[in-house]
Amino acid sequence: MRNAKWGIALSNRFPEKIRVFDTTLRDGEQTPGVSLIPETKLRIAKQLDELGVDVIEAGFASSSEGEMDAIKLITKEGLKAEICSCSRGVKSDIDAILASGADSVHLVIPASDLHLKYKLKKTREEVLKITEGCVQYAKDHGLIVELSAEDSTRADIDFVKNVFTKGISCGADRICPCDTVGILTPERSYEFFSDMIETFPNVTISTHCHNDFGMAVANSIASLRAGASQVHATINGLGERAGNASLEEIVATLKALYNLKISIKTELLYRTSRLVSRLTGINVQPNKAIVGENAFAHESGIHTHGILAHPSTYEPFSPEMVGFTRRIVAGKHSGAHGVKSTIEAMGLHPTEEQLKDMFSRVKNLGDKGKKVMDADLLAIAEAVMGLQKSRPIQLEEVTVVTGDKVTPTASVRLKLNDKEVTGAGTGVGPVDAAINAVKTAISSVEPIHLDDYHVKSITGGTDAMVEVVVRLRKGNRTASAMGVREDIVKASVEAVISGMNVLMADYNNQTRREQVQ
Amino acid sequence: MRNAKWGIALSNRFPEKIRVFDTTLRDGEQTPGVSLIPETKLRIAKQLDELGVDVIEAGFASSSEGEMDAIKLITKEGLKAEICSCSRGVKSDIDAILASGADSVHLVIPASDLHLKYKLKKTREEVLKITEGCVQYAKDHGLIVELSAEDSTRADIDFVKNVFTKGISCGADRICPCDTVGILTPERSYEFFSDMIETFPNVTISTHCHNDFGMAVANSIASLRAGASQVHATINGLGERAGNASLEEIVATLKALYNLKISIKTELLYRTSRLVSRLTGINVQPNKAIVGENAFAHESGIHTHGILAHPSTYEPFSPEMVGFTRRIVAGKHSGAHGVKSTIEAMGLHPTEEQLKDMFSRVKNLGDKGKKVMDADLLAIAEAVMGLQKSRPIQLEEVTVVTGDKVTPTASVRLKLNDKEVTGAGTGVGPVDAAINAVKTAISSVEPIHLDDYHVKSITGGTDAMVEVVVRLRKGNRTASAMGVREDIVKASVEAVISGMNVLMADYNNQTRREQVQ
Repeated sequence: MRNAKWGIALSNRFPEKIRVFDTTLRDGEQTPGVSLIPETKLRIAKQLDELGVDVIEAGFASSSEGEMDAIKLITKEGLKAEICSCSRGVKSDIDAILASGADSVHLVIPASDLHLKYKLKKTREEVLKITEGCVQYAKDHGLIVELSAEDSTRADIDFVKNVFTKGISCGADRICPCDTVGILTPERSYEFFSDMIETFPNVTISTHCHNDFGMAVANSIASLRAGASQVHATINGLGERAGNASLEEIVATLKALYNLKISIKTELLYRTSRLVSRLTGINVQPNKAIVGENAFAHESGIHTHGILAHPSTYEPFSPEMVGFTRRIVAGKHSGAHGVKSTIEAMGLHPTEEQLKDMFSRVKNLGDKGKKVMDADLLAIAEAVMGLQKSRPIQLEEVTVVTGDKVTPTASVRLKLNDKEVTGAGTGVGPVDAAINAVKTAISSVEPIHLDDYHVKSITGGTDAMVEVVVRLRKGNRTASAMGVREDIVKASVEAVISGMNVLMADYNNQTRREQVQ
Repeated sequence: MRNAKWGIALSNRFPEKIRVFDTTLRDGEQTPGVSLIPETKLRIAKQLDELGVDVIEAGFASSSEGEMDAIKLITKEGLKAEICSCSRGVKSDIDAILASGADSVHLVIPASDLHLKYKLKKTREEVLKITEGCVQYAKDHGLIVELSAEDSTRADIDFVKNVFTKGISCGADRICPCDTVGILTPERSYEFFSDMIETFPNVTISTHCHNDFGMAVANSIASLRAGASQVHATINGLGERAGNASLEEIVATLKALYNLKISIKTELLYRTSRLVSRLTGINVQPNKAIVGENAFAHESGIHTHGILAHPSTYEPFSPEMVGFTRRIVAGKHSGAHGVKSTIEAMGLHPTEEQLKDMFSRVKNLGDKGKKVMDADLLAIAEAVMGLQKSRPIQLEEVTVVTGDKVTPTASVRLKLNDKEVTGAGTGVGPVDAAINAVKTAISSVEPIHLDDYHVKSITGGTDAMVEVVVRLRKGNRTASAMGVREDIVKASVEAVISGMNVLMADYNNQTRREQVQ
């Protein structure tokens, strides 16, 4: 057994080339609550193609007109990837695929007694006949055939093999024993796929794992280790229930842990994840591996200290590998090193003594349960360093009128460098109107750009607290700030003005000026 | 090798009793952006205790005053679980733990050369001396000692063993080789822990896995299979970066796949997950295993058909096991069976022909990228069944005034059963005021309760589309409805009125009345 770094075994029977079969647009789109229009599906398909997947399962051609339109749109695009569509064991489903112009059919045949008895209501003999008829029909019409046996992992394994034997004898190009309800474990996957590969040595074997117990990725990797040569996966692990195996986690594991070559442009993984999250409306949790917002974020003192000294102390690989960036966050668990690095980036150079004081104040804020934004760090630094508190903008008054028969309209009165200015604005809603009024009021002196406006999802009643986080930009500087109120308008105005004040304080420039003098 | 159901191996060396060491309040709270105040930590600790964990790691006593207060609060509560606190290899950290009243110390000693060289800046000899000094000090003061070797999986294994040998000789009760940056794989975990257990047969060995490649749960299970007898985990997999191993996934796997007895009340898992998500502010993604909103949701035709015939066709275990419930969702991928079951629950009994028509209209909506709510299903059913469209409430006008110097105030004019009614209300913000005005306007005829109000997180600009989803209740009936607008006030009013109309349509009662006649 040859060992790679960190003792990870390389004795495995990984195939020469691992094919990636992406099913984000089929099994992934079956995520409850997700529906994509054809143009959106095309956009994701193009991104997947650029990412370098071998097969794009684009949808279920027979399931609706929209699906058919989407697959047609994608097949016409001339992508490098094979375009596949899903089918039940019904000839009309295959006819739909032929009409769609797809290259291949993913033919799904139920295999467990549970599925045969309760869902399909057919005998094993009937199922074998259906398999024969469908594979033959698809091959006769020129399709590549990937034959899946649904719920294989809970089925009589001899019957699963009979289905595959029948399918292969009719020309099936690839076979896939599906772990439909995610009951595999890694050691069982290895055993199961070793047996499959021994039985069917001359055909491409796929693995299709679901994530009901959170082990879809580990099970997929174990199947590949046993010699399976194609893996079904989705971006962000989308899919029925707890989803399918996550493409980005599989690819990063194969590359960073097993040191294998894989034809995926890993540096596009983060961007692809964001695109899919945005277009499907399914959030990625912050602590999701590889692509979650926190995957390369560090707050606790011990960790930031390590990261600033040498990133690999607390990162298994560099975030750039997947097109992501590292983030140092200030908060309750911060150490002195993290606070120092953030404050220096603002252009301030506190003494060791001052830094210690700031550090303890950051912790105090955190102890009170508060998130620490750039605006908070600036306020702390000013207080500790005895700098004059620089709040060039102060809100005096904001008023908004909105409704379905009036154009949302807002007025603000601000103190801008102690001079009173007013502004008015309209918008698509009350928040937009209020922010436009603020922008108008200060436009004469400060062109500031709102890079990101984020309202945390509000659950509860209409009187719940609203948390608005903004990131503003002025030239190449950015600042984060937050507003928390029961009123979304007030919270938004507060956050924007607080962020603007950080940018206008501009210690970077002052420092530069002092250095020049 | 004895096999349990589905061929999963039981040959394993699982210990008689698997101890659960929960670190939601320590490693979990180190999630960037999370800070919990002492009262919140206590609330979570009580829930973990009820859940049945063996150890609660309550925080890092020396890290801040708030942490100290939180641990004191928890130790005073007299919970059944052992209360533990984390410490670096520094005596003052142990003093803080002694002051906090915790039962045990989780002493973390860096073990890899990478950590020694770049972070700790100490030699191996110095580290052994520190280990000796700290373990002895903690034991002399009556603490249970769990000794962790940080970054063990990337360290020289002989040195890791030296650290543990030294610690055990000084009285350490438990040892834990940490997979600090999540680089284990299941087969490597099994091998690694088998070696550990062979070397240290007489001490409790813990496994502490991070999720950087998405395999923390599989790695934890593999360590337990090799004979480790305690598992570190967090609710929702919270923790540094991509988080720690998820407690609920580990527990469900041990119980449902390996058929092991475990002293966790699994039926409290969902409730515990929601509590932690709400109090930390870290969302659980819908496709998270075990506790994600979609973990037991079914939309696609093939799946709902199966589920309605026999739930185990598409569920590996029943949602009740973890205190969750099944959900059938209507949408683009729906089959006739799913639509039928939802419409019948509304008290409507369409013919097969009508059902087919409804079904194709649901798909059409889905094809357009729309989520299908109860309000949409009702509209479709009415159209198809030729029922008079029942919209007792119609919005004529809404106007809101808000600001920081005015009390948010709204007026509405509605048609209620073709009679014009008006209402006015104030609130904490413009949305609250508008909804209160609607409630006032219809209060004379309809007491309807807003069970849930959810605004999807808005990212982008202040002019982004806002999606408001509400669930309303009247007696024992509920209805979901959605409003999508650029204006959060209009979207909210639209959603609430649309849901009220579903509840007031009340075909259930009509049907009952007809049946009585």
